[in-house]
Amino acid sequence: MTHGAATQSDRRNEAIDPSSAVVRFGADAPLALEGGGTLGPWAIAYQTYGTLNADRSNAILLCHALTGDQHVANENPVTGKPGWWETMVGPGKPFDTERFFIICSNVLGSCLGTTGPASINPDTGQAYALDFPVVTIRDMVNAQARLVDHFGIDTLFCVAGGSMGGMQVLEWAATYPQRVFAAMPIATAAKHTAQNIAFHEVGRQAVMADPDWRKGRYLEAGTRPEKGLAVARMAAHITYLSEQALHRKFGRNFQDRSAPTFSFDADFEVESYLRYQGRSFVERFDANSYLFLTRAMDYFDLAKDHGGVLARAFQNAKTRFCVVSFTSDWLFPTRDSRAIVHALNAAGASVSFVEIETDKGHDAFLLDVPELFKTTRGFIDSAARARGLPASGDSAL
Amino acid sequence: MTHGAATQSDRRNEAIDPSSAVVRFGADAPLALEGGGTLGPWAIAYQTYGTLNADRSNAILLCHALTGDQHVANENPVTGKPGWWETMVGPGKPFDTERFFIICSNVLGSCLGTTGPASINPDTGQAYALDFPVVTIRDMVNAQARLVDHFGIDTLFCVAGGSMGGMQVLEWAATYPQRVFAAMPIATAAKHTAQNIAFHEVGRQAVMADPDWRKGRYLEAGTRPEKGLAVARMAAHITYLSEQALHRKFGRNFQDRSAPTFSFDADFEVESYLRYQGRSFVERFDANSYLFLTRAMDYFDLAKDHGGVLARAFQNAKTRFCVVSFTSDWLFPTRDSRAIVHALNAAGASVSFVEIETDKGHDAFLLDVPELFKTTRGFIDSAARARGLPASGDSAL
Repeated sequence: MTHGAATQSDRRNEAIDPSSAVVRFGADAPLALEGGGTLGPWAIAYQTYGTLNADRSNAILLCHALTGDQHVANENPVTGKPGWWETMVGPGKPFDTERFFIICSNVLGSCLGTTGPASINPDTGQAYALDFPVVTIRDMVNAQARLVDHFGIDTLFCVAGGSMGGMQVLEWAATYPQRVFAAMPIATAAKHTAQNIAFHEVGRQAVMADPDWRKGRYLEAGTRPEKGLAVARMAAHITYLSEQALHRKFGRNFQDRSAPTFSFDADFEVESYLRYQGRSFVERFDANSYLFLTRAMDYFDLAKDHGGVLARAFQNAKTRFCVVSFTSDWLFPTRDSRAIVHALNAAGASVSFVEIETDKGHDAFLLDVPELFKTTRGFIDSAARARGLPASGDSAL
Repeated sequence: MTHGAATQSDRRNEAIDPSSAVVRFGADAPLALEGGGTLGPWAIAYQTYGTLNADRSNAILLCHALTGDQHVANENPVTGKPGWWETMVGPGKPFDTERFFIICSNVLGSCLGTTGPASINPDTGQAYALDFPVVTIRDMVNAQARLVDHFGIDTLFCVAGGSMGGMQVLEWAATYPQRVFAAMPIATAAKHTAQNIAFHEVGRQAVMADPDWRKGRYLEAGTRPEKGLAVARMAAHITYLSEQALHRKFGRNFQDRSAPTFSFDADFEVESYLRYQGRSFVERFDANSYLFLTRAMDYFDLAKDHGGVLARAFQNAKTRFCVVSFTSDWLFPTRDSRAIVHALNAAGASVSFVEIETDKGHDAFLLDVPELFKTTRGFIDSAARARGLPASGDSAL
């Protein structure tokens, strides 16, 4: 309990007074929300890597996934672990910090410094909790656009991200086509399916079933819905891995024993692994943020915002697209990416599409997948040349 | 609460004093268990349909799935709904009650009259709860064999069932090859995969996370882990349906509204449906039974019991097999059935294999799937002729 309480206070500090840089917008500069009304004052926390060039043309915005954050390529202040995309971001890496100015901001509704349900509601002096407005992917993107304005950047060289990050990439290309030179949506979809919504609903119900959730008011109560959030994470985690990956990693291996115990102990390695995933998640993430961000993903349906025709979302796009899917991703399967590609083709947009063979499932976009690195490097180099920026081959000359 | 309490007392009555016929075995006739030790006194509750013929050669044992019961073709005493396999069992149906004597018993560890965690532990006078032994699929089958002995039946004409029922069919054929003339394992596997175990573990953790579970002692406490069990059921239910079926039934349709509410209400039909599935399940099923039966499935690994070689499980089988899978079943996919078929072929057994094209997912075995009816009828008729019993064509003569 002591350990949990300490972590809770750490997380509240990160939510309200983050280690990251923050741009704060006063009540005079509110954010208009898709669901109606405005949010203000509000703040957006971010990290940057590399240097913005003189004509501000080398900025890449990376969009994080559901439980990700802005700490894409530095030690995470909450977990002490490396950044979530250090495989992709750094000197000489596909998103090369020696040539590009990389921005990653914490999404609206999250809990690492950008305004969300754990932030203080100025009307009450308490955390917003469920009084926080239900924000959407478009709201997240509009908040990011304000941050990009703050940097005086007119056009982003590239916007890239996987999963919920990919949804933001698609929304950027649809809402701000003139501000996105290149876009890379990875392992994502233009809308959430019934099965995706169903899994998210299980997670939300698991959180809300926990009496320590206290109708969202757990911060004041000094409790945390740890068990409910852990169950939610466990269920979600299964969907991030492929059946093949689970079989390869764990199979039916027993954990530290040679025979079943005929009990409810974690006999199997996969049980022990899942329990660990649940436990470690609750140490770093706010339960209400989990509710709001899953809801934002469920509501995402880009075609619906354009008369039901996805191609219309991209009809004036000059943006170059590279769409990436993974063969064993059953949460956002290749057919979801193909639907995006078909719409881009119908809109006459420039698009390349790569389906990467891997057994790593949805999480492949976060893992060591050489084909993803190669694809990204190739796309970024080609776009850089078209934009008059140095490509990775050039810098070796 | 009043409604819940009434249902709880109904369920306890059904667990201890079921509407079904029951065979009770005294402490002098205990059941030896795979995990060691014995269970006794113990009871097995069952339903029968049709008439046993003079030479006792026309009996079909149907094995139910995880949350099924013995009420295969009559109104369920708990829910008031039709039996779970009325599509398949009845006069003139594939399991024809005019020609066969159909037996279905509640499995060991369940809560409809066969001894399980809700039964009274004679040592304490209270429900067993977690003091009930962790039983296995083989234990369930050994209990059924005692019931079959009770009827004076030497050889069952057929043993059939889907999912966990299919595991029992495989175990019957492996443990009592001389007592099974024909076997029909449907939508099942010879072992549970890591992904299957993972989903079950999420369900168990959801139940155990509910403070009303009270370490299993909820019956004495007068509570029920309704929320935890509902979450477990919701997660499991997603795995019983295919992504296509969820899309066809619900898609992204809103429930009784035309636009999102920007709240955590069940905006989408699929959310409302899942919540209903969770709520209705807790009215009819015992939470501890859910723990024990999921555990039994997780432990099932027929090859492991035969030196790691599945074919050895069937090496002396004279049984005729018909293995059935469904194209959209991702919980027990066709490759699991193919593994069974390969082993049967390697053992030189008689086997036919049918993969049925359907988008209904794992639950297809319970649904109106004409190809399943046709396959079953064909297999049963052919086996009946080989056994010297009337086939369905014959009875029309």
